[in-house]
Amino acid sequence: MTAAARLLETLAQWGVEYVFCCPGTSEIPVLDALATTRGAPEFVLTTHEAISVSMADGYARASGRIGVAYLHTNVGVANGLAHLYAAQVARSSVAILAGIKGTATLPHRALTTSPRLLETAAPYVGHAWQNLRAEDLLEDVSRTLWHTTVVPEQPAILTIPQDHLTADSSVAPPVRSGARQGPAADAVRHASALLDAARRPVVVAGSDVARRRAEADLARLAERLGAPVFVESRRDLERWSFRTDHPLCAGLFEPRAPLLAEADLLVLAGMPTPLEFSAEVPALPPGVPILHLSEDAAEPGRRYVPAGAVVGDTAAALRGLADGIRPECAPSRSEWLVRVRKDSEDRRARWEAEVPWDGEFSAALAMRTVADVVGGERLLVLDAVTSTLPLLRFLRRTRADSLFATASGSLGWGMGAAAGVAMARRERVFAVVGDGVVQFGVPAFWTVVRHRLPVTYLVVNNGKYQAVVAGLRKSGGERADCPLTDISGVEISALAMAFGIKATTVDGAEGLRAALAEDPGPDDGPRLIEIRVNDRLWQ
Amino acid sequence: MTAAARLLETLAQWGVEYVFCCPGTSEIPVLDALATTRGAPEFVLTTHEAISVSMADGYARASGRIGVAYLHTNVGVANGLAHLYAAQVARSSVAILAGIKGTATLPHRALTTSPRLLETAAPYVGHAWQNLRAEDLLEDVSRTLWHTTVVPEQPAILTIPQDHLTADSSVAPPVRSGARQGPAADAVRHASALLDAARRPVVVAGSDVARRRAEADLARLAERLGAPVFVESRRDLERWSFRTDHPLCAGLFEPRAPLLAEADLLVLAGMPTPLEFSAEVPALPPGVPILHLSEDAAEPGRRYVPAGAVVGDTAAALRGLADGIRPECAPSRSEWLVRVRKDSEDRRARWEAEVPWDGEFSAALAMRTVADVVGGERLLVLDAVTSTLPLLRFLRRTRADSLFATASGSLGWGMGAAAGVAMARRERVFAVVGDGVVQFGVPAFWTVVRHRLPVTYLVVNNGKYQAVVAGLRKSGGERADCPLTDISGVEISALAMAFGIKATTVDGAEGLRAALAEDPGPDDGPRLIEIRVNDRLWQ
Repeated sequence: MTAAARLLETLAQWGVEYVFCCPGTSEIPVLDALATTRGAPEFVLTTHEAISVSMADGYARASGRIGVAYLHTNVGVANGLAHLYAAQVARSSVAILAGIKGTATLPHRALTTSPRLLETAAPYVGHAWQNLRAEDLLEDVSRTLWHTTVVPEQPAILTIPQDHLTADSSVAPPVRSGARQGPAADAVRHASALLDAARRPVVVAGSDVARRRAEADLARLAERLGAPVFVESRRDLERWSFRTDHPLCAGLFEPRAPLLAEADLLVLAGMPTPLEFSAEVPALPPGVPILHLSEDAAEPGRRYVPAGAVVGDTAAALRGLADGIRPECAPSRSEWLVRVRKDSEDRRARWEAEVPWDGEFSAALAMRTVADVVGGERLLVLDAVTSTLPLLRFLRRTRADSLFATASGSLGWGMGAAAGVAMARRERVFAVVGDGVVQFGVPAFWTVVRHRLPVTYLVVNNGKYQAVVAGLRKSGGERADCPLTDISGVEISALAMAFGIKATTVDGAEGLRAALAEDPGPDDGPRLIEIRVNDRLWQ
Repeated sequence: MTAAARLLETLAQWGVEYVFCCPGTSEIPVLDALATTRGAPEFVLTTHEAISVSMADGYARASGRIGVAYLHTNVGVANGLAHLYAAQVARSSVAILAGIKGTATLPHRALTTSPRLLETAAPYVGHAWQNLRAEDLLEDVSRTLWHTTVVPEQPAILTIPQDHLTADSSVAPPVRSGARQGPAADAVRHASALLDAARRPVVVAGSDVARRRAEADLARLAERLGAPVFVESRRDLERWSFRTDHPLCAGLFEPRAPLLAEADLLVLAGMPTPLEFSAEVPALPPGVPILHLSEDAAEPGRRYVPAGAVVGDTAAALRGLADGIRPECAPSRSEWLVRVRKDSEDRRARWEAEVPWDGEFSAALAMRTVADVVGGERLLVLDAVTSTLPLLRFLRRTRADSLFATASGSLGWGMGAAAGVAMARRERVFAVVGDGVVQFGVPAFWTVVRHRLPVTYLVVNNGKYQAVVAGLRKSGGERADCPLTDISGVEISALAMAFGIKATTVDGAEGLRAALAEDPGPDDGPRLIEIRVNDRLWQ
């Protein structure tokens, strides 16, 4: 057997079901081997490497397995890089294999060859290596896959010279898995004491809670604590981690909500250091002591000096704290809890008043409609920039680990990620994306059609780079109408139809409601609803 | 005035006419300054950074000025990287300015921020810098622009913290320009002696000849030498550098043409080391002594040890050699010249027989038709992968520096590059691209429509990754029908129409001829002709 065939076997041994690729000639030995290797992973063709990587990422997040993208040379790696950053931010187990020219050609001035390929990828991976000897290829592949599973997970990359794929090859090395670490007992004790002492604690449910399927553990801790739980802020959210029908759920974490400044402990439960947008916009309520639960030892303390930190597996940390605290302290927090919940209800009422059902068809009203219809149980992928905030404000979620978003700001991620989530979960995914996002990820349409993937793209088409419009307004200039924010003119539904997607256009809440009500099944292939909203976010 | 306004002034002083951008919030001070700064460059909105960079590159190549792309943070730089490689391969004067978060935010965990941003770009630029102090911004911008003009030209990148754009700023530093070096006199003497001694010389006209507008200098050298001149090979061609109606023109350089092995001197005139596709495919006829004229001292000797090398400005080198050789040697080469020209005519006759006018509508026949109709004088941009070879074989070119291609293999380059060439030359550009290329560069459609650019996309739609099909055939496997090469299913003309481009579909040579005959003027905006060919390259 050739090394290429053994490579396919090795991937299969690791539980890799799919390889997302957009092949060039350097990958030919692998394509050849696919014809003859039994049990090989299925190769999923994409027509741009940005889609290969975002699909692998979406698949990895939603399946808990390794997402593998096989890219073509230095240009393919470059094309996948922005979404590799998204995978890194999400600590997604994405392995990049990249075909490069043969070792007899690499030293020369060769087509699609950079002697510094790995340097471009290194900032976005935890492990970067070029296979040096054909006889080490399988070991290198295994090590690359393994690296993506080591907590804190990061993507990894291996470049593979073409001639090493055609060499004879021995048996694949055994599968190994990344070790997880539990939290240190003294850290849990210290944190439990902090919690016991808190009278006005606030818990933020980070994405790692859903990732580790620890929603119930978080609920148990919150119940014993008697503390309100917020869902991670719009900026940080990668997975929705607390069900909104839980009595302790206080809705979306918005750091500038005035009441939060009165908290005496902020529990960041299973998340990295919150992302900062700018120095003027605080990512956390200022001055509130922090208890930081993180799986990455480098996160607590990176920006804020926490009063306590628990580093280790999120589920284990939550269980340890729930067992470590004294539940008899809970009643002392009941007044605070009532105030927070009242405040959350008031905020929600204000939001609803700001976006009335009979208002103009703004992005916010479209999002309120989507939240109302698509609701709590459907799989959601979000990459809608400014529309994300109103959607998250109105969403009610009741199903564990069923919402995926990116905190990376890598536009276009959702186009491929939704396809990857659909492959992992084998049910319909609703992808809420902006019109700018569509232009960043058009080739995703090709793959969802070819594989008849059950993705419904909900495209909020406002013809604007609305985030830039908002920024211009805030800057105090008079250029909110700057022509460089105007990306109108694309018929998104016609664009999708050119790829063979069933698409429809709506321009009001009722039309949107009707279109959403159609609800094709998981076998009905991709759909697109172009939602033509006005050019204002809120009304 | 703010630094942002001064930055715009600085760009204008350097002769920068356009800035290609896809802005995010980090660029807001620049957008604000645009409203109030007189004489600022025009900002051209693109809807993906791959288009910003390929437009800047096409513009730089066709204008001789600096092409500036203003990108958004680490993700924007990542998205532009593959085409930055194309600019590097072409030694294109492309300057990347990248907006990043403010200095008070950068050290934190910030949105769209990598502490190692410059590392990703460094392999593809000659100069990479982050502006450290607001008071140095204009100096840093100037230095970045200057670096792109220093021979051998390379792209350069400067990252600009947002807060440095709003600082007060002093006057811009003076414009400086990259020095050019002439060749050393003894190198010219040695090379002249090699030429005098050659009885069967062959000249390859490299892209630097057209870049330096040195076509006449090359013609004079060739005439005094009495030597045949080939146009750079399909793999290396970035600019067409020798008119086909010159009596010494021997057509396209194809290294494996048997007669070339009989040459006794191969003159690489104004090009880097030829690109290698694989160790099995020689990039030069083996064993023939080389005389290498290059503007980059690192190119001669990089792969082949040349018998002679002349390093320096291509025009100066060609003039020096034309004056240095003894024209009385020319008659001794006449028999060789007759043989080479006869061989070239025979090759062309074979090519024509292989692709008869009444044959099936293959990519080759489509390209023969395009070559016949679009012909010698129109501006051409090529990014058509396998279709490029038949097109180049059939092309006759009579206008200096009017054809642009990439040797990078960075798919999609031609989509934006054609738009950049159209902005630089203000006349209609014919962009010959593959259907796979279109999928890599869809957002270019948006910008050509918004700016009504006179680009006619000629899309060779074979529904295949034909290069991979060819590679699979050569590999001896039975997988030439591998489903991973099949990218059919897109109605390219419908896709273009969704953006507002007038598009038509043809499926035969006569239809193509008729569509090409329409010939809209330079003010008629973009057009697209989808050329549906069969799935074979040659017949």
